[in-house]
Amino acid sequence: MPGVLELLPAEQVAFNRMLATIRSVFERFGYLPIETPAIELTDILLTKTGGDTERQVYLVQSTGSIDQGRAPDLALPFDLTVPLARYVAEHEHDLSFPFRRYQIQKVYRGESPQRGRFREFYQCDVDVIDRDTLNLGHDAEVVAIIDAVFEALRLGDFTIRINNRKLMRGVLERHGVIDPELQAATLREVDKLAKRGRQAVSISIGELGVGDDATTGLMDFVARGALSRQEAASFLGSIDAPGPLLREGIAEVATVLATVSALGVPDDRFVFDPAIARGLDYYTGTVYETTLDAHPEIGSICSGGRYDDLAGLYTSTRLPGVGLSIGFTRLFWQLREAGLLAAADSSVVAIVTLMDQEGLDYAISVATRLREAGINTAAVLEAGKLGKQLKQADRIGIRFALIAGTEERAAGTVTIKDLFNQTQEEVAVADAAGFILAND
Amino acid sequence: MPGVLELLPAEQVAFNRMLATIRSVFERFGYLPIETPAIELTDILLTKTGGDTERQVYLVQSTGSIDQGRAPDLALPFDLTVPLARYVAEHEHDLSFPFRRYQIQKVYRGESPQRGRFREFYQCDVDVIDRDTLNLGHDAEVVAIIDAVFEALRLGDFTIRINNRKLMRGVLERHGVIDPELQAATLREVDKLAKRGRQAVSISIGELGVGDDATTGLMDFVARGALSRQEAASFLGSIDAPGPLLREGIAEVATVLATVSALGVPDDRFVFDPAIARGLDYYTGTVYETTLDAHPEIGSICSGGRYDDLAGLYTSTRLPGVGLSIGFTRLFWQLREAGLLAAADSSVVAIVTLMDQEGLDYAISVATRLREAGINTAAVLEAGKLGKQLKQADRIGIRFALIAGTEERAAGTVTIKDLFNQTQEEVAVADAAGFILAND
Repeated sequence: MPGVLELLPAEQVAFNRMLATIRSVFERFGYLPIETPAIELTDILLTKTGGDTERQVYLVQSTGSIDQGRAPDLALPFDLTVPLARYVAEHEHDLSFPFRRYQIQKVYRGESPQRGRFREFYQCDVDVIDRDTLNLGHDAEVVAIIDAVFEALRLGDFTIRINNRKLMRGVLERHGVIDPELQAATLREVDKLAKRGRQAVSISIGELGVGDDATTGLMDFVARGALSRQEAASFLGSIDAPGPLLREGIAEVATVLATVSALGVPDDRFVFDPAIARGLDYYTGTVYETTLDAHPEIGSICSGGRYDDLAGLYTSTRLPGVGLSIGFTRLFWQLREAGLLAAADSSVVAIVTLMDQEGLDYAISVATRLREAGINTAAVLEAGKLGKQLKQADRIGIRFALIAGTEERAAGTVTIKDLFNQTQEEVAVADAAGFILAND
Repeated sequence: MPGVLELLPAEQVAFNRMLATIRSVFERFGYLPIETPAIELTDILLTKTGGDTERQVYLVQSTGSIDQGRAPDLALPFDLTVPLARYVAEHEHDLSFPFRRYQIQKVYRGESPQRGRFREFYQCDVDVIDRDTLNLGHDAEVVAIIDAVFEALRLGDFTIRINNRKLMRGVLERHGVIDPELQAATLREVDKLAKRGRQAVSISIGELGVGDDATTGLMDFVARGALSRQEAASFLGSIDAPGPLLREGIAEVATVLATVSALGVPDDRFVFDPAIARGLDYYTGTVYETTLDAHPEIGSICSGGRYDDLAGLYTSTRLPGVGLSIGFTRLFWQLREAGLLAAADSSVVAIVTLMDQEGLDYAISVATRLREAGINTAAVLEAGKLGKQLKQADRIGIRFALIAGTEERAAGTVTIKDLFNQTQEEVAVADAAGFILAND
């Protein structure tokens, strides 16, 4: 079916391993798992006005409900943030705050089938939510998590780009652009800078009603490019007579960058980038994007930021938060396209072959021993030609093939063929598991 | 929302751990993971006539498609078998046979909300599929997988009930009931034996058009109850002048039971139970159910069986298979209801507390060290009262709380409180990870 990424088993193993790595890093930072239903009430999902309702949402209806002529009241979530908001509001009194949660599950978008556009895809999200206020240290911790995730995934060098939306809004404020709606619309245009270029974006901003001075001021500001922690300090320190919003933004960036360093993130992994805007109005402070140094064409592989109030639609408690999101299915697809996916070892380590049906009991006792030693082992249960079995094993990527012909059975041994190194050795059945564990 | 099982984080940890255990056993037996899309074409899902189309299927349609007045052409899968059939047919030339696959994902049923009935639930399936014929040894291997899964899950003693549909059909055949449709309908009634009792089922079978002799013969046959391997051998051996189907069934059961033993499954874990019918016509030979000895009221927690042809609707290749299925969400819910879920340890092992904001850098360097040692560690980033932080840690189920006040910071140490044992010790920061790993 177009718009979905269906994998063959070997790719699925690689996909699952990467997801497991991400999960384990999220847990390493003390974040707790939750899972929200794949089917939510339409009323919950579509409460937001504007952007979200315009998305292509998948509505869901049971055949029974259709027969009764009812309208669909269920839908598939298009992100994990709206379900998180509903979850936190619903379970507020059973949760402990700050609530550190991660969530790895599929979301759905009714996209037109198109290369690299997926109708269902995994999203890996981390968010920390507090009541009333959330300490800025968490904005830095999210950067440390991004760093740890991409270090663990071994996709090559990467750069985490950090900015704060109060800076651009502060620059606009200084030029008299104080309408929050207009500021937000302007930032949405700046978000397209990398794709459209300065001139086109400047024109769009002008058309929104932002004056020439303000536009030039903003474009000069964001044109500084990526700055190291030291460069950022001197650039932000040099800003002349900042207004209140700009001052707040400068202070927040300074705190976040210092805490990111304290968290042990190496200096060459993160920069201050005043051009990072993020398209979502939703973000109110720190924002992040992450790029692979050798593959800028892939774009941001992990983004996120801080928001003032997660669940205003569902609860009167003010719930500020900060988080990150990895669009994992798209990332996996892009890595594969770019040839960056190392062939993963099979999840199956060993296969016990079978040349004559009389050897079945011996073969399965060998397989059982390996399994008991924790070795993932397939057993051939129908006798056949050894050559064909070895070829199949090799095709699946299995490393060790165990052979027990009449001679081995008489001797209580088994021949272990290492299909990667094309070596083989005969060992006692009792030593087979140890041999494989020592050589894998 | 009714009909879904949404968990708090502590329960989610337990849920995820059990799923991970099941996954690791499936992989131990050399089965490969696949994942099929959550959205499939309605034409694919609803090709089967009868039972399946009558199910409450969830149809899916994007808002864009609704606007264009189109009918829904997408649906959510109601099981993993139909998607597997489509997958194997579609990728037949890229797969290696016998194809051992497992699949752990959600399926959807438009059920009316009702206690213990779920609209979306995890299913954990294992199937092995071959071309043309599939060796009977695989029917036994599936039993060994069931055994290994429930041993690993530690839910108490359990019994795997094995039967073969050829036996009941053979008994009917012997009494002149040879119409396969009528045989299938009769077995569907026998499947209700435990719930409805012999008399009610006998009446239903009679109403189907099965004669009194055949009904009595069948009910006597299935009334033998669960038999050990030895008892099964003598019972099946005592059957007088069996016809061809009965003979086939007897031979298959004997082979399967012997191979199950050879695979190392203890004798007290599996029985031959001639009353196991399974409702699905789909099954053609071996069938299984699994029950918890101390909780028969929960019913079968893992069922499955052999089928002659997986994907006849999608490919001309004959693809026989055998497999098992665990309705995991329902199982988890039932275990919780029965008080059988041991409280899982939190996924968070340690928390670094913070009493004064000046201690932030010290605290996060402690947290970073623990994380580098592989210890899942949350860090408090906003200074506050220690008592409150300890209480929260305890509530989440975190075992170790690390405290670094001005004295510890001056000494380069940290106080580690074991919240489970109410003990505490001051250790050098460099020794903190080692201390926790040694005491956890």
